[in-house]
Amino acid sequence: MALIVQKYGGTSVGSIERIKAVAERVLRSRAKGNQLVVVVSAMAGETNRLFQLAEQLSEAPNARETDVLVSTGEQVSAALLAIRLQALGYSTVSLLGHQLKIRTDSCHGAAKIKAVESERIRDALAAGNIVVVAGYQGVDGEDDITTLGRGASDLTAVALAAVMKASACEIYTDVDGVYTADPRICPRARRLDRISYDEMLEMAGLGAKVLQLRSVELARRFHVPLVVLSSFADESGGTWVGQEDKSMENVLVSGVTLDQNQSKITLTGVEDRPGLAARIFGPIADTGIVVDMIIQNASADGRTDMTFTVPRTDLRRALEIVRGVVAEIGAAGVRHEDQVAKVSIIGVGMRTHAGVAATMFKVLAAEGVNIEMIATSEIKVSVVVNAKYGELAMRALHDAFLGLGANAAETE
Amino acid sequence: MALIVQKYGGTSVGSIERIKAVAERVLRSRAKGNQLVVVVSAMAGETNRLFQLAEQLSEAPNARETDVLVSTGEQVSAALLAIRLQALGYSTVSLLGHQLKIRTDSCHGAAKIKAVESERIRDALAAGNIVVVAGYQGVDGEDDITTLGRGASDLTAVALAAVMKASACEIYTDVDGVYTADPRICPRARRLDRISYDEMLEMAGLGAKVLQLRSVELARRFHVPLVVLSSFADESGGTWVGQEDKSMENVLVSGVTLDQNQSKITLTGVEDRPGLAARIFGPIADTGIVVDMIIQNASADGRTDMTFTVPRTDLRRALEIVRGVVAEIGAAGVRHEDQVAKVSIIGVGMRTHAGVAATMFKVLAAEGVNIEMIATSEIKVSVVVNAKYGELAMRALHDAFLGLGANAAETE
Repeated sequence: MALIVQKYGGTSVGSIERIKAVAERVLRSRAKGNQLVVVVSAMAGETNRLFQLAEQLSEAPNARETDVLVSTGEQVSAALLAIRLQALGYSTVSLLGHQLKIRTDSCHGAAKIKAVESERIRDALAAGNIVVVAGYQGVDGEDDITTLGRGASDLTAVALAAVMKASACEIYTDVDGVYTADPRICPRARRLDRISYDEMLEMAGLGAKVLQLRSVELARRFHVPLVVLSSFADESGGTWVGQEDKSMENVLVSGVTLDQNQSKITLTGVEDRPGLAARIFGPIADTGIVVDMIIQNASADGRTDMTFTVPRTDLRRALEIVRGVVAEIGAAGVRHEDQVAKVSIIGVGMRTHAGVAATMFKVLAAEGVNIEMIATSEIKVSVVVNAKYGELAMRALHDAFLGLGANAAETE
Repeated sequence: MALIVQKYGGTSVGSIERIKAVAERVLRSRAKGNQLVVVVSAMAGETNRLFQLAEQLSEAPNARETDVLVSTGEQVSAALLAIRLQALGYSTVSLLGHQLKIRTDSCHGAAKIKAVESERIRDALAAGNIVVVAGYQGVDGEDDITTLGRGASDLTAVALAAVMKASACEIYTDVDGVYTADPRICPRARRLDRISYDEMLEMAGLGAKVLQLRSVELARRFHVPLVVLSSFADESGGTWVGQEDKSMENVLVSGVTLDQNQSKITLTGVEDRPGLAARIFGPIADTGIVVDMIIQNASADGRTDMTFTVPRTDLRRALEIVRGVVAEIGAAGVRHEDQVAKVSIIGVGMRTHAGVAATMFKVLAAEGVNIEMIATSEIKVSVVVNAKYGELAMRALHDAFLGLGANAAETE
């Protein structure tokens, strides 16, 4: 008897009819003889509705109380699904964060899981129950309710799968798997059957929103096999996310991502001496702005240009900080560009095959796309280009690496 | 420094604006130097909304899961009020049933409080907090969420006031106190300044809906002084509910109540022998129908008539049962009347003053109202009359016992 953890997102449980459909899907898995732990998100729109209530009462709602408030969204979903499964004749119990217990730190709104007690869930399963778990929530050492951050019902599911050593953690969402690129931009994008944790991490970090980043990290650490599936289509298909294996290396590039919400800041004539980077990026980090790529040109005559990217919504604040630092560090000036996009190719095949980056640059050059910045990791190459070329670049790279006949290692 | 427990009902926290007003009211009491425990109900309409969601998923929603579901209503209210009080600069913590802990039995939907731990609430108060408590909920021995029955946020407030030995338990509602009669029927009804627990119990039992019956019983048992106040008017006024004292005995009648949803069944020619009442009322009780008044006429020639009242909505079911029993017990027949009303006068003064019932009968006779049944307790006289005379009877009795110049013991 296999133990399966299933997770259904907000759209999947977004209405009474959808909850009924989820119950049917749960029971199809049950009929195969599986033991089931089902993690649910709040009904679509509910978490936002609750946050908005709080915002009408306070400009900065107290974090502890906000968690008490918004955690009710998942509590309602869990109870409703359990009520439905009971109505269909199946012993079911819902369990909340404080019952499970999912122990976290006290960082309300973005709590980290410290431990998951599995006794109550094991007892409930042993008694023949389907267990429905309210996602996104835990309790701290004082038994105060905490939440794990937006989208963190995935994290609840992976944590439970890890602790229970589940055979699989199935993430049901509104798409039927992980795609080689965003199908809304790349019509030729296709669903991946398999992808490694590392590739999925890069893709999640680069804005592919199918899985929450922290959940993939946790799955990788505890070797939890993830399956991304659609809750609106039948069970076939889906994308399996797991350990990298030999066969994966034959695929040079697994996906292409595009982030269109970037902006670029350049400090010119920066003195090339130790400590200056900290003077620039320390104050930016203090305000919570995430700096993504940082490029420092080779130094000539002791002075250099330093370029970095920040989300476009943070550009104005970042510029204010940088302009304050310019005089202090004796730099020549500040330039910025708010219309840039980041295009990335990802694939574990890059670890063992040289020349992928060169091919990427050739493809972009052939399209007349100028590359403004480059950053690479072991399994990823990202370039920053003018925003107006973003979608063109993505499609060209997808066709080159992932089009018909492409993407086998022997194309090298 | 006095400790006050305040309770706000669903209408009082029914909107963002109302929650803001409740926060102001809490802080006015705080400004007087009081320590405050504030119990809240779900926002008006929310509990019904949640029940309706469950009913769309199951004809008979699982009781444990329904409690998980509907308890979120009070959780939301508690968090929102705490967020508002924090926003106004006051240290506040919300506490839920599982945090407090309010220990109950496992009778989901109508759980009974077994114990209330006060350590966490005392610590929170000692640390300078206003404590906001989600009403209506508790946890059983398994830490499963239970609810205490409709209207039971009053019960939460009284239980906390009892355990904390609070100076007062203030019940804020949409009326400004307990009235001598329903003002919609008796224009001359007036607010009572004081009323005894026993009188309040009779009035609650007879359909005055200001306070929940079980809450009054609990308050009486633990000598918790209750104050009924309006959350829409200023703090003056209100009705104090407490121990009976000498001065109360001078008031013959404190209130007049009218129950217009009664019906009457008469079994004629019942043999006057032991055990027959059980044969009649046993099967009725088994179906959950509440029989209120039972009258058995004096026996003549070994046969008697037996008359009793049931809620009008249960008349049809009760008649079916009774007709089944008639032949079995050898009674002559069954009559029924579905348009009857019960009018009652209540007052602790009756304990020490004779003749109140006689005055009541005289008043009704003067109005030409025929009395069909009579039942009395130590502090109450109830009569059943034709429903069309119900309001007339109530007004006549109110004027006689509670009108200007009436109702002093010396009118006897």
